[in-house]
Amino acid sequence: MSKNLVRPQSISGFAEYLPAEQRAAQQMQERIRRQFELYGFTNIETPAVERLEVLLAKGGDTDKEMFLLQRLDPEADAEAKLGLHYDLTVPFARYVAQHYGQLTFPFKRYQMQPCWRGERPQEGRFRQFLQCDIDVVALDKLALSFDSEIPLVACEVLRSLDIGDFDLRISNRKITEGYLRALGLGENVPISVVTRWLDKLEKIGPTKIVEQLRELGVEQAERALALAQIQARDLSFAERVTALGVEHPLLEQGLQELTEVMQRLFESQQTGFLVDLSVTRGLDYYTGSVYEIRWNEFPGLGSIGAGGRYDDLASNYTSHHLPGVGLSLGFTRIFAKLVGTPRLPLPAPTPTQVLVTWLEPVPDKSRQLASLLRSKGICAEAYHEPAKLNKQLQYANRKQIPYVLFEADMQIKDMRSGVQVDVDLASWTPV
Amino acid sequence: MSKNLVRPQSISGFAEYLPAEQRAAQQMQERIRRQFELYGFTNIETPAVERLEVLLAKGGDTDKEMFLLQRLDPEADAEAKLGLHYDLTVPFARYVAQHYGQLTFPFKRYQMQPCWRGERPQEGRFRQFLQCDIDVVALDKLALSFDSEIPLVACEVLRSLDIGDFDLRISNRKITEGYLRALGLGENVPISVVTRWLDKLEKIGPTKIVEQLRELGVEQAERALALAQIQARDLSFAERVTALGVEHPLLEQGLQELTEVMQRLFESQQTGFLVDLSVTRGLDYYTGSVYEIRWNEFPGLGSIGAGGRYDDLASNYTSHHLPGVGLSLGFTRIFAKLVGTPRLPLPAPTPTQVLVTWLEPVPDKSRQLASLLRSKGICAEAYHEPAKLNKQLQYANRKQIPYVLFEADMQIKDMRSGVQVDVDLASWTPV
Repeated sequence: MSKNLVRPQSISGFAEYLPAEQRAAQQMQERIRRQFELYGFTNIETPAVERLEVLLAKGGDTDKEMFLLQRLDPEADAEAKLGLHYDLTVPFARYVAQHYGQLTFPFKRYQMQPCWRGERPQEGRFRQFLQCDIDVVALDKLALSFDSEIPLVACEVLRSLDIGDFDLRISNRKITEGYLRALGLGENVPISVVTRWLDKLEKIGPTKIVEQLRELGVEQAERALALAQIQARDLSFAERVTALGVEHPLLEQGLQELTEVMQRLFESQQTGFLVDLSVTRGLDYYTGSVYEIRWNEFPGLGSIGAGGRYDDLASNYTSHHLPGVGLSLGFTRIFAKLVGTPRLPLPAPTPTQVLVTWLEPVPDKSRQLASLLRSKGICAEAYHEPAKLNKQLQYANRKQIPYVLFEADMQIKDMRSGVQVDVDLASWTPV
Repeated sequence: MSKNLVRPQSISGFAEYLPAEQRAAQQMQERIRRQFELYGFTNIETPAVERLEVLLAKGGDTDKEMFLLQRLDPEADAEAKLGLHYDLTVPFARYVAQHYGQLTFPFKRYQMQPCWRGERPQEGRFRQFLQCDIDVVALDKLALSFDSEIPLVACEVLRSLDIGDFDLRISNRKITEGYLRALGLGENVPISVVTRWLDKLEKIGPTKIVEQLRELGVEQAERALALAQIQARDLSFAERVTALGVEHPLLEQGLQELTEVMQRLFESQQTGFLVDLSVTRGLDYYTGSVYEIRWNEFPGLGSIGAGGRYDDLASNYTSHHLPGVGLSLGFTRIFAKLVGTPRLPLPAPTPTQVLVTWLEPVPDKSRQLASLLRSKGICAEAYHEPAKLNKQLQYANRKQIPYVLFEADMQIKDMRSGVQVDVDLASWTPV
């Protein structure tokens, strides 16, 4: 060929699935959607892009990873600068602020959309990835019961996906902040710097944490660490914190909140909840409950879900006071580990349940039979041309179509068992 | 407030729906998906972005409307230039070329994803819009039966959406091209320039077409127009073309193909098919059947779907010969006209079917009842805190939740009829 071909290839960090994988992804999304809706969360979608000023309002370290849009046409009208959203929280905050008057609060929404970040691709990191978020946002005051509902729903979702052993780690930022303030921190060294180190406890270990805190000039490094090391699968954490002999009103409030939240979770029929006082999440906007989900089979994968409570979701976009609590599940990361395993086997690469053969040049019968099957809700194709039977069976085999209907003698063959029988379509249904 | 607020506002050309609208959009998408799958089309999704060289390989007039990505971080590694896809045909062509060895042909796929174009927003034009595409692509030879299957599926979809009166206009480029070549065109004036004018017949009328063609130096302007003016709802078009007294092998082949395609369509149980020989579609890559769907209620809206057959789908990316035929439905454009009308009424803004009241401070009963309902597949919320009954009923009313379950005396109220009765949850189901 004299033509210059553009080589078709994957773009690093952008996952793309073959048909069978895509069907598995769709099944998994439907399961998640179903759980969200059972709890009364309603779907919203926001455009892929937001104004740059909206994306940047929060500040933070995601800025550098942002993708901006640019028109190829250099003469394009000067337009508002736009960027692709890098999470679903910022678009949701803007959405709530913008449509405030048309929403009923508490507003429970889920959102399942791709996000984009210019991260350096590595295991479990993607530059386009599907996030599945649930959040509840209220006007002025948000009931604490939602702080337990959010992790409960997340748990139900992960169980419905049969992902195996995971820990949904829960803490409350008020505990950490009150405790550290009582230790005299927060004046020379910002609390957020200390909590960011404590949050790395599992990753880098206690010795390193104490070293790092010392280097920052934190004299009470061991006492700070003692709090972060508390883990519990029951309500004993409160006593253990109290035993550390530190008092602060914020600490008390945090303990009370966490106790109430954990009480409901431990009483629920779900398992996997773990109080872990090292969890603080890097993001500054969390002000109460914080959540982080680790998949114990894949400790190197990082968190597969995270979230928390924020005092004021949309304070950059509105003067209404809108507290919220939410959690985001990393679909792409979880799917990559599940697909093709016994937990999420690959389905056939086509939805077709019945292939109707077309052996004689006159096609009407094959097509009419396929049409009849479809009217009964069965996915059916008539083979697209008269051809040798072998060729048609090969097509069915390759596409893993479970049944072939022979139009000439009205017999149906189960391609998995090989059994072929007479069939009355009026009463027949696929197994 | 001293804080500078970023004003939350819509971005022109980017649709965003309120919860009830979004639920309607989801219902509509599910109906489309269902029809596609009934015919054995399998879903694929491609990343939102493609390499710029892939997007530009086709050439044409969409270049200027393309959105490129740029990293906000000026120090970001030099990466391949990326752009957002402006249709689903180009990504599909790249996908087929790339995964060629892992697909079974004929490969029938559907794709429902947003596309982006920097168009000047106006009625029916969006800068982010959802396209619903079906295509069949084969290796070397593609059966003509697919040229009738594609419009048949499109018709089934539009009927299932109850959009009312539409015309699915069909022609064959071979007819137009053979006819014009026989008239001696194609040497001084490119055929594609002439067909682009003929394609505007309905929009600008015959007088203007003849004028424009004359200006281009087309002496046979009236004879060219005579072909384009042929419309038929039966197979009579072939005789009428023959009666024009022009002969060309390509014309003959086109007439034969179109006759075979229309025969099946007219014999089907669907209606709305119209042979319209002015239809050629602007795009150069169509080589046989061409389709264009007009919604007769909204003549100014432009086409709500279009497509056709191309000899070689992925010739820019592979040397395999991959003929295809497909059609793209403009979801966003159709949805905008349907939503909120009796054809697609607004559902409630939440999936919740039952709200369980929470009147006493002890919450367990409400939550357990909600959990029981969910285990039966019913979307249920317990109210989030003990509150006055009025407040809880108001919440249910505003969210149009159809049932309220009073946990104290186990009665259920149908909020639409106002009827309240004793309930046994073991046997109860929502109507």
